[in-house]
Amino acid sequence: MSQTSSQQDRVASDSVGVVTPQYAEFDRPFTMENGAILPSFRLMYETYGELNPDRSNAVLICHALSGHHHAAGYHDLDDRRSLGWWDNCIGPGKPIDTNDFYVVALNNIGGCHGSTGPTSNNPKINEPYGADFPQVTVGDWVNSQARFADYLGIDSFAAVIGGSLGGMQAMQWAIDYPERVRNALLIACAPNLSAQNIAFNEIARQAILKDRNFNEGRYLAAASKPMDGLGTARMLGHVTYLSADGMDLKFGGDTNSNETADYYDVVGEVTSYLQYNGQKFAGMFDANTYLLMTHALDKFDPARSFDNDLVAALKNATARFLVISFSTDWRFAPERSREIVDALISAGCDVSYADVESLSGHDSFLLEIPRYHRILTSYMKQIAEGLGA
Amino acid sequence: MSQTSSQQDRVASDSVGVVTPQYAEFDRPFTMENGAILPSFRLMYETYGELNPDRSNAVLICHALSGHHHAAGYHDLDDRRSLGWWDNCIGPGKPIDTNDFYVVALNNIGGCHGSTGPTSNNPKINEPYGADFPQVTVGDWVNSQARFADYLGIDSFAAVIGGSLGGMQAMQWAIDYPERVRNALLIACAPNLSAQNIAFNEIARQAILKDRNFNEGRYLAAASKPMDGLGTARMLGHVTYLSADGMDLKFGGDTNSNETADYYDVVGEVTSYLQYNGQKFAGMFDANTYLLMTHALDKFDPARSFDNDLVAALKNATARFLVISFSTDWRFAPERSREIVDALISAGCDVSYADVESLSGHDSFLLEIPRYHRILTSYMKQIAEGLGA
Repeated sequence: MSQTSSQQDRVASDSVGVVTPQYAEFDRPFTMENGAILPSFRLMYETYGELNPDRSNAVLICHALSGHHHAAGYHDLDDRRSLGWWDNCIGPGKPIDTNDFYVVALNNIGGCHGSTGPTSNNPKINEPYGADFPQVTVGDWVNSQARFADYLGIDSFAAVIGGSLGGMQAMQWAIDYPERVRNALLIACAPNLSAQNIAFNEIARQAILKDRNFNEGRYLAAASKPMDGLGTARMLGHVTYLSADGMDLKFGGDTNSNETADYYDVVGEVTSYLQYNGQKFAGMFDANTYLLMTHALDKFDPARSFDNDLVAALKNATARFLVISFSTDWRFAPERSREIVDALISAGCDVSYADVESLSGHDSFLLEIPRYHRILTSYMKQIAEGLGA
Repeated sequence: MSQTSSQQDRVASDSVGVVTPQYAEFDRPFTMENGAILPSFRLMYETYGELNPDRSNAVLICHALSGHHHAAGYHDLDDRRSLGWWDNCIGPGKPIDTNDFYVVALNNIGGCHGSTGPTSNNPKINEPYGADFPQVTVGDWVNSQARFADYLGIDSFAAVIGGSLGGMQAMQWAIDYPERVRNALLIACAPNLSAQNIAFNEIARQAILKDRNFNEGRYLAAASKPMDGLGTARMLGHVTYLSADGMDLKFGGDTNSNETADYYDVVGEVTSYLQYNGQKFAGMFDANTYLLMTHALDKFDPARSFDNDLVAALKNATARFLVISFSTDWRFAPERSREIVDALISAGCDVSYADVESLSGHDSFLLEIPRYHRILTSYMKQIAEGLGA
């Protein structure tokens, strides 16, 4: 973390302030679940707070589909858009309190924010990997994160935390490395994808694959990006992150109210909102990464290696669990979280569960919802108290 | 209807048998709600059953987004795929009983199944209208259907019936032509679109507009079709017609069951099912029609002309109403049907309402669901008994 005191004066007292991303290089080959081998890889990461002397207060933040290593603070105080994606939750005095914890956030392999992925150089051909980057899985991410923990000298995390696809990584951590995870926080996630989830992902992928500029995934070499397809994919994802009622509220489409906007305005607002977000995302994100991430989502199913028995899968886990769902999340609905909770109970695990009322659908996990943040705060504070013992 | 007795022997006794589409030409100019004028237009239609002597037993079937005039029977007995889209509901002894009623089904203007629409010749330029076909509204459809009723010599329909966008036409009929509709059956519809509905439509339109072969809507002249975009649009529509639980059941994705298919099979099955349906639809349908139909859906809101007061809009209606929703329909959810029911009650209208349990989502309105068909049968039988009085 690099910051000057004059810069730090310009941020709120509960902000981690200005942060500088770092990277770690791993020179030993990394074998992926599908047998592919990365000869070496790099992980971009950021840390917030200080590692305590017995190295017991590390917390790992796992990111979701479009996330990355920049979870908190600013890269540039003059650019307020450079705020980390989970800044409302990470900082001194915030739910994941950097006065208590050494918080580590990274960009996963296959990503497009500096960690080795489709936009990285493929040493075999001295060109970007593009569509040739091997298909990653949640298990691969967890294995690479374990190598990363070794690199940081962290034997065991006080907590592994994630929302959505990030929660799936936290679950996989608890199953694959039980001795290295003391708490797993699974927020707005599911034990696997529903056919509907898969269908939406597939439609998003089709939009990318059929884009005139996709060029079989070798668009970087052709210096053109499949912006339209990636934009459509994002628009579709975005709608599934929101709730129907939340959208009506946001766009004034509730015609039961006399204070409603003109209906044509709703059509126009929805359209321009989606297009703006789709294009913004398409400009920042890599299409091959989008394909990899959604395939990893589709294939996540920790029960599969245990005869489709999630209870059996979770019997390995020794972590304590906090599971949180949101009432209007229809992408990973509360019922899916309760499947996890039921399996954890059957597996004899220690689990707390909360379903949080919210109109914001799946997006809720990123928002500063009072009850949600109170629950996170209490849970993390308990962990912190245990550290002192 | 043209059929030979040898052909008729080959169909079930409750089938209307082999039917031949007809068309009606309207030479007087037709002024649309947006001020555009069609100098003339053609409507394709089919009829099933016989008009009674006092011309009181006519029933109008209004179609949904991808529907058309071929609602019942076969075009060709040697091609069983030529079955009408609502054949399970229309025929001798079926819920809409052709022994009782003279059933009329048509293809709406703006459609692509023979009625005047984007693929028709624009007399001004002697080329297909393409993207220049004026934006139709539900009100335009109802006005053109009223002209069509005049043509058939039908003063008043015993019932106007539709599902989804078809139900919206039935509602508009009851408001705009109260003296010509004795019963309106509104199935799986809504008083207007939610912001989420509009968002899905917009994403589908974007997929079409961005297709490399869309060519600003002049693809017919270029002899290429935006198949990819139309396919993506259909895939997306299709997912919103199904329920999440119904999809899990269909694709064996319920991993709580030990009898589940391998999970990778689910991904593959969902993918190939969607792609097959998307491509099949793209081969049969016209992209400009898809754009027109979804815009008409987005803009439907009969309350708008009445200060956003649906009750005021419905006070004109004198018809009896039957409203039917389906428990897992999240495109036009039961709550949306109940908004209509509540408004009808407040407006002093006679309304019956049923919410039918079904796992098949919005698609339910097309399916032979026992309770649904029993309700339709009873309701239509009551109307038929009234005809005899």
